[in-house]
Amino acid sequence: MKSSDESPGSDADEQNDILGQENPSESFHNEIPLLLDPWKPCRGTRATVKGWLLKLRRCLERVCSIEWYSYAALGVLMAVLSFLMDLSVTKLLRAHQWLYVKLEGNTLLQFLCWTLYPACLCALASTFSSSICPFSTGSGIPEVRTVLAGIHMPHYLSLTNMFAKFLGLICTLAAGSTVFLGKVGPFVHLSTMLGAYLDNLCTLIRGPKKETGAPAGLVVAAAVGVASCFGAPVSGVLFSVEVMSSRFALRHYGPCFFSAACGALTFRLFSVWSGEGETLQALFKTNFPTALPFHPLELLLFAFLGLLCGAVSCCYLFCHRWILHFTKTNPIVVKMLATEKGLYSALVVFCLASLTFPHSAGRYMASKYTTKQLLTSLLDRRPWDSPPHNASVQLELPLEWSSSGTSVFFSLAFFLFMKLWMLVLACTLPLQLDTSCSVCLWGAAIGRLLGEGAAHLSSSVNPGGYAITGAAALSGAVTHTLSPALLAVELTGQFSHAVPILLSTLIANGLARSGHRPSFYDALTISKKLPHLPSLKKACPQLPSTTLEKVLGEKPVQLQRGAGPAEVQHAVCSSREAQIPVVDSHESSILLGFVLRSDLLMFLRHGKTQRLEGHLDEVCCIHPTSVLLSPHNTVEEAFNTLMVVGAQTLFVADKGKLVGHITRLEMKRILEGLASGMEAASRRT
Amino acid sequence: MKSSDESPGSDADEQNDILGQENPSESFHNEIPLLLDPWKPCRGTRATVKGWLLKLRRCLERVCSIEWYSYAALGVLMAVLSFLMDLSVTKLLRAHQWLYVKLEGNTLLQFLCWTLYPACLCALASTFSSSICPFSTGSGIPEVRTVLAGIHMPHYLSLTNMFAKFLGLICTLAAGSTVFLGKVGPFVHLSTMLGAYLDNLCTLIRGPKKETGAPAGLVVAAAVGVASCFGAPVSGVLFSVEVMSSRFALRHYGPCFFSAACGALTFRLFSVWSGEGETLQALFKTNFPTALPFHPLELLLFAFLGLLCGAVSCCYLFCHRWILHFTKTNPIVVKMLATEKGLYSALVVFCLASLTFPHSAGRYMASKYTTKQLLTSLLDRRPWDSPPHNASVQLELPLEWSSSGTSVFFSLAFFLFMKLWMLVLACTLPLQLDTSCSVCLWGAAIGRLLGEGAAHLSSSVNPGGYAITGAAALSGAVTHTLSPALLAVELTGQFSHAVPILLSTLIANGLARSGHRPSFYDALTISKKLPHLPSLKKACPQLPSTTLEKVLGEKPVQLQRGAGPAEVQHAVCSSREAQIPVVDSHESSILLGFVLRSDLLMFLRHGKTQRLEGHLDEVCCIHPTSVLLSPHNTVEEAFNTLMVVGAQTLFVADKGKLVGHITRLEMKRILEGLASGMEAASRRT
Repeated sequence: MKSSDESPGSDADEQNDILGQENPSESFHNEIPLLLDPWKPCRGTRATVKGWLLKLRRCLERVCSIEWYSYAALGVLMAVLSFLMDLSVTKLLRAHQWLYVKLEGNTLLQFLCWTLYPACLCALASTFSSSICPFSTGSGIPEVRTVLAGIHMPHYLSLTNMFAKFLGLICTLAAGSTVFLGKVGPFVHLSTMLGAYLDNLCTLIRGPKKETGAPAGLVVAAAVGVASCFGAPVSGVLFSVEVMSSRFALRHYGPCFFSAACGALTFRLFSVWSGEGETLQALFKTNFPTALPFHPLELLLFAFLGLLCGAVSCCYLFCHRWILHFTKTNPIVVKMLATEKGLYSALVVFCLASLTFPHSAGRYMASKYTTKQLLTSLLDRRPWDSPPHNASVQLELPLEWSSSGTSVFFSLAFFLFMKLWMLVLACTLPLQLDTSCSVCLWGAAIGRLLGEGAAHLSSSVNPGGYAITGAAALSGAVTHTLSPALLAVELTGQFSHAVPILLSTLIANGLARSGHRPSFYDALTISKKLPHLPSLKKACPQLPSTTLEKVLGEKPVQLQRGAGPAEVQHAVCSSREAQIPVVDSHESSILLGFVLRSDLLMFLRHGKTQRLEGHLDEVCCIHPTSVLLSPHNTVEEAFNTLMVVGAQTLFVADKGKLVGHITRLEMKRILEGLASGMEAASRRT
Repeated sequence: MKSSDESPGSDADEQNDILGQENPSESFHNEIPLLLDPWKPCRGTRATVKGWLLKLRRCLERVCSIEWYSYAALGVLMAVLSFLMDLSVTKLLRAHQWLYVKLEGNTLLQFLCWTLYPACLCALASTFSSSICPFSTGSGIPEVRTVLAGIHMPHYLSLTNMFAKFLGLICTLAAGSTVFLGKVGPFVHLSTMLGAYLDNLCTLIRGPKKETGAPAGLVVAAAVGVASCFGAPVSGVLFSVEVMSSRFALRHYGPCFFSAACGALTFRLFSVWSGEGETLQALFKTNFPTALPFHPLELLLFAFLGLLCGAVSCCYLFCHRWILHFTKTNPIVVKMLATEKGLYSALVVFCLASLTFPHSAGRYMASKYTTKQLLTSLLDRRPWDSPPHNASVQLELPLEWSSSGTSVFFSLAFFLFMKLWMLVLACTLPLQLDTSCSVCLWGAAIGRLLGEGAAHLSSSVNPGGYAITGAAALSGAVTHTLSPALLAVELTGQFSHAVPILLSTLIANGLARSGHRPSFYDALTISKKLPHLPSLKKACPQLPSTTLEKVLGEKPVQLQRGAGPAEVQHAVCSSREAQIPVVDSHESSILLGFVLRSDLLMFLRHGKTQRLEGHLDEVCCIHPTSVLLSPHNTVEEAFNTLMVVGAQTLFVADKGKLVGHITRLEMKRILEGLASGMEAASRRT
């Protein structure tokens, strides 16, 4: 309603924004357009509504500026979305379980129910989302961080994409622990889309703001994604800081925490209102003993677990890179992924599900548990392997892990082996998938295995502590981040293991980063050829030291200081830039400054109406240039300068002579060129 | 040992660093100097030792690069320092208590013991540190963050300063809860000094590295300060990120956490080895009930507590600014602080101590407790006000708060009132003081008061939860940071109150920041006239939009392209810069690039020996300039560009003509000029 109401103003704003001018005075922006525009219906009603809205806005702005309301709204809306998604996924999973139990006795029907239900859901998700919005598949985090690095990619932030992603994600998650995927990445993407929408709304209400780098709204939104996903505000913000940016601006810190806290509070209040708990609690609440959570010597075991997780993460990342390469080069897979996305998803999920069927191999890997039940069972503080002192206690133990009568050690080892390649295979699915949850689960299983071993030797050991440590360490190592350590604390509400978790995560990270290999998200970014400088640096270390002269595009259209109307006319027709450089003369090319395109248009109009033959420097204002780049600067320096300086266009001059220009679009072109094998470089040399 | 051993190489390195050249080849650097230098004694032994050290270095570097060892060493050393300090402070405090108890019966002697002990310690601390190093007084955080913003201030990072600060801090802390001060700020400063020393050591070992912004070693050190102070790694890093930087580079994130984790681990292991606990535990371990830590409706009370703390913080910051202004303008105080630092400290502390004397007003404010005992008593989970159901439980309650027979409400309110002005007065002392601990304690008392009130109405309320929330909210509001919320969780090891703590801290912060007033550290920075741009922006919003042309210094010495030996000789004599700009001709002043001072010296030497009359552009290499600034850029843009681009000197050109240059020293001069009332601006206009 608001957006349609304010559309005449918004057009003017956008134009002003492009031209880099100041916003016209507030009163003009708010009141004049309606009177100037005679074609709109119901002018009276519209004016009344607009008046009320303006009054409301003044009231709201008296407390704090309008952005803060949008941050709060973002947090609350994302928590609502997260809660709704959890609710629908739980219902769908319960329906599946109900059907499976009803068919007890007929193994064939049970098999069909077990395999076809997730296969159909995944086929639906991939067909639906690829037809509505082909950009909605995948984790979303690589795209989001490219946007946050200051590159403009509007199609990744559209509301259509949000709709497709939300529905697709419900179907994917409802496929259960077979596909074994989480919601972190897609939720960050969803949140960023909502953030972009609210950011536009704010711009409509208070006029555009001069910002360097990415808009604050998007940075905040990325942080809210994780926070509302698990009700974990602090680690949500830290995760987004670590994954998204290479330099974090501290002015976003307060808004990020505010919005994330709103989201987490709403999310937890929902769980209180829905009757899940009496008060605000952690999502996977554990009850480890706090008096003596671990013996100091156990720190060595935790350090070993960190090393183990680091090594496993290297192995996993290698497999992941290999399968990414395979899906791009194998002709059959390429063809299937291009044309028959639904069929491919259905086939892969059918294969995976037939393996996890509880009457086949599934019975050795607790496949009846949902993802949440799996994690809860792994975090259990009692050793599973202990002799049954007391029958009633034994009954409460997670029996699925030893339902087949085998040892829990075998079950865990089999689970780890099977899930490794199943997870790698699932990464190829054209779905709204994110593997960070699965990796976390997988790490918990590694930790549990080690913990059960230790508990076998000493009865005072708590294997749940190893499980949570392993989960944090492996997630951290795969994504090259440290915030999973804090996420583990926030998710379980258990602070006693904070030191071992941090130690283990640091060691795993050190090992994972030591090979200078791209992280999980870097590999995705490189594979998708997204223009993201930090990832490109990891893939090819000499890329950022490439100098500008090698990648610079064509020299921009320039004007002489004494240009007449004909030259100006030609420049306006041949250039689309908002700022057109002015040089001393075409021979010397000494850069003097720039003129605005709008001034040039005015100059031409005056020239036509008043038949005056003026020169450019007599009529138009020549603005001084901002920071000047040199062709010997590296691409990285140019990129950083563009982000730091609030200018729209940076000119490149060599010894005072204009040789090129760098805008955001131009920078995107350069980075994309670098990403696709330095073809841009070869074009000019 | 290492530093003296490698000194010939280090001199060469320093020279190379100044000249901006590459390091010569490793083998040359390591082996030749010893043979070339015939004056050193014991050449054989020295060569053997050097050989062994080189082997050790190669072994170490095979695992990871040398910086990581220095980060680990930094963490461990800071934890050792922290532990030693705690130990000596505890001994000194115990001696004071022992003496006080021994004098029981003689009130006059007890009074003298109570007042003179801290007065003498503080007088000693301020006399000693001002005579050894006058820069060692104060919190240290304002200076450290100026250094981290890229401004070179070597006298704040000297080892003498470190020594003075360490001893002074022990004396100040041993003065006990009378002076009521903490160790956070001085510890951050100590850590940065140690970090700078280790950073220099690393540079000696592996040669200089091209870095933009502050050296990684210093950023890491600032994070380690807080972490080793309390054994709280995560909040230590976050606090330093929030307070120190306006843009945090993510490449420092891993090192910061690694070093902080090493520090926190060592600190906690020390407490295990010294027999304080069986395993690694939080410093102020609480045992709040986890099943139902608080009722959801209590969130409203927590939000109210946040508002209260925000309002109190505004009041405290106002008093703090007033007293800072007072100490600078009142002639008596100015004279005392300039000449009689020891006497002033002794007088003020004597006054404070006579008020806290347990036989006078002190009995209403639990003054017998040390700072640590105060905090522990405030965090107690049982309501103090409850009727004694059980005599044995009642005995364990902190009785000091009601020792005078008065109500705990009166004691808490009296404590709050007295400590407010005592804290403000203590801020004027020329000591190694930091008020963040005191503010934290003060916030805990506010929370406790509210919590006791709530517990009076409903028996299920845990007043300790309010105390911890108040502590976090007030500390956050005074320093304009959010990390105290996490620090509260890490210090108490209690995760159940994370959501109320975060909520309350956010609200308090919002209120404290709403007036656009400087934070505690900003006020200190402004009062000390330190060149720190973000603080200057808060004090005077139009400062950062000042353009360069208003503050630019004199035009640098320039050379013509075709300059002969005479002009070069003149330039070398009149300029001290490492990079001298070259222009087309003195008339046109079109900037072509720069030559290195070392090349010019070589040119002159060749000219003298071979009697050749060459021109500059025929003999010397003219390097292309990096990013060029325009005089219309703002100071903030220039500052950011200087930090982002790795160049030593940025030239300022207007329409291709050289008009000035910006180096780090020049930027420091500009900011200092801006800080002292824009005197630099008035000089040129």
